[in-house]
Amino acid sequence: MKLTILGCHSATPHADKAPTAQLLSTKKHHFLIDCGEGTQVLLRKAKVKFAHIKHIFISHLHGDHFYGLPGLISTFRLLGREAPLHIYGPVGIREAVTLLLKLADSWTNYPLHFHELSEKEPVCLFSEDEMEVHTIPLKHRVYTNGFLFRETPTERKINPEVVEKLRIDQSQMRNLKQGKDVVNVDGETISNAQVTYDPHPSKAYAFCSDTAYHPEMTQQIQGVDVLYHEATFLDDNQELAKKTNHSTAKQAAQIAKDAKVNRLILGHYSSRYKDLTSFQSEAGEIFPTVDLAYDGYTLEF
Amino acid sequence: MKLTILGCHSATPHADKAPTAQLLSTKKHHFLIDCGEGTQVLLRKAKVKFAHIKHIFISHLHGDHFYGLPGLISTFRLLGREAPLHIYGPVGIREAVTLLLKLADSWTNYPLHFHELSEKEPVCLFSEDEMEVHTIPLKHRVYTNGFLFRETPTERKINPEVVEKLRIDQSQMRNLKQGKDVVNVDGETISNAQVTYDPHPSKAYAFCSDTAYHPEMTQQIQGVDVLYHEATFLDDNQELAKKTNHSTAKQAAQIAKDAKVNRLILGHYSSRYKDLTSFQSEAGEIFPTVDLAYDGYTLEF
Repeated sequence: MKLTILGCHSATPHADKAPTAQLLSTKKHHFLIDCGEGTQVLLRKAKVKFAHIKHIFISHLHGDHFYGLPGLISTFRLLGREAPLHIYGPVGIREAVTLLLKLADSWTNYPLHFHELSEKEPVCLFSEDEMEVHTIPLKHRVYTNGFLFRETPTERKINPEVVEKLRIDQSQMRNLKQGKDVVNVDGETISNAQVTYDPHPSKAYAFCSDTAYHPEMTQQIQGVDVLYHEATFLDDNQELAKKTNHSTAKQAAQIAKDAKVNRLILGHYSSRYKDLTSFQSEAGEIFPTVDLAYDGYTLEF
Repeated sequence: MKLTILGCHSATPHADKAPTAQLLSTKKHHFLIDCGEGTQVLLRKAKVKFAHIKHIFISHLHGDHFYGLPGLISTFRLLGREAPLHIYGPVGIREAVTLLLKLADSWTNYPLHFHELSEKEPVCLFSEDEMEVHTIPLKHRVYTNGFLFRETPTERKINPEVVEKLRIDQSQMRNLKQGKDVVNVDGETISNAQVTYDPHPSKAYAFCSDTAYHPEMTQQIQGVDVLYHEATFLDDNQELAKKTNHSTAKQAAQIAKDAKVNRLILGHYSSRYKDLTSFQSEAGEIFPTVDLAYDGYTLEF
């Protein structure tokens, strides 16, 4: 997987800081995650081919995560897109986009599929070509989901030499791949572990923004390779974080620690902080592997 | 007046080209004209104080002229604005902005006044503190207005020495300022020209984008100091201009010539043109004083 953070700042506009938008690329997919105002220009700067984007996931309907979407949808039309576009986001997203297209008399010439969300429990949004995407219910001022991107777990690998040696019939291959014990042609039970290897571990990425400290998410994101968690404030503004339903760097690190993730990326910094190094040191006291997101940050994992 | 062109390109996004937004500043006003996606960042780059903006004029509801408005309105709230904001634009603009604010649960904490337009004839939108703003009906794919910004014509200046010498009573001063002839205390008719000077000429700026070639506007913009007229295409794409309700550089120059304006600024170039010098030469054959707009262009007049 390759993560490109197009923008990672909170809502107040700055000449050189972009609001939230990310691109997660896998062998077969390019998922756009959130689409703050100006995302289409950031995609151009990152030299992303617009036609590659087929699925857009919107966490919530605040402007700094969403107001770039209508323009991007219009641009797809200008570029002559014909491929379907799938948009996943809170209920209301369809009405908003449809109204703006209607007022501009600019209907798309490609199929636009809205998948509107209102579930309070995790749901699977997408499962195709070795990838699954699930919602991660978050706690914010408005209905908000994070997203968990996970390679579909692959089947166990079979050792063909052992299969032959232990006289296992070919009809048992599916059971072996699924991790089951089997009976061989001589009627002996063969434990799965004797014949199969662990598959390549499934890579996973969790995007969690915006959210207050919300330990309920830790079980769902347990052991992911990379967690992007918002850290709008430092611990000295813990009360303000609570009041505005945002997190501190310390809280983000606590989530990362409890979920035993491999790497934590912080972002969505409030514009009140001119120097971001304290975000790294504050989180680092709790969780060792912390990156600070910046506009243009990339990570392959 | 000082004109700042924040963005002057057409809809297709580019890493370093912004869609339409302009700021017209006078002694007492800062008018924002159109608000394409990303305008709030362009305002930051131009170091414009957000609180100065009290009136926003939107020509039409295509994204490259309008999709920056919801974000700007939200930002005003974040910045703690209390002063009223007036928005002038086509019918539907209130519904669009209101829906987006509702979905974000982000109502403004300042009065937001919408002035929705559907008139097909010019109307006066604003008349205050020595400035008037009128619509200029344009011809585009959707309902569109340009805007004429004009200093309110000042009264004629009186020469007090001549007033005394010609024995004109003080009660006639209003008539003199208004350009009327008067009768003096001896019963003699005094022509206005003997006693008054021409006032300072009223400065005027006309913004005309987007529009097909539309000579009906020439009468209204007669003699303005500066005309910004869209030139999406060159003459070699005349047919495409007609089909898409845009103008060529040649047509913009013809309007400038017929309206006897002082200076023409071209903008809204299609992204198909990598080199813009032909816009200047094509227009220059018809009208001598042509500027090519660029993002960040400023002009004091």
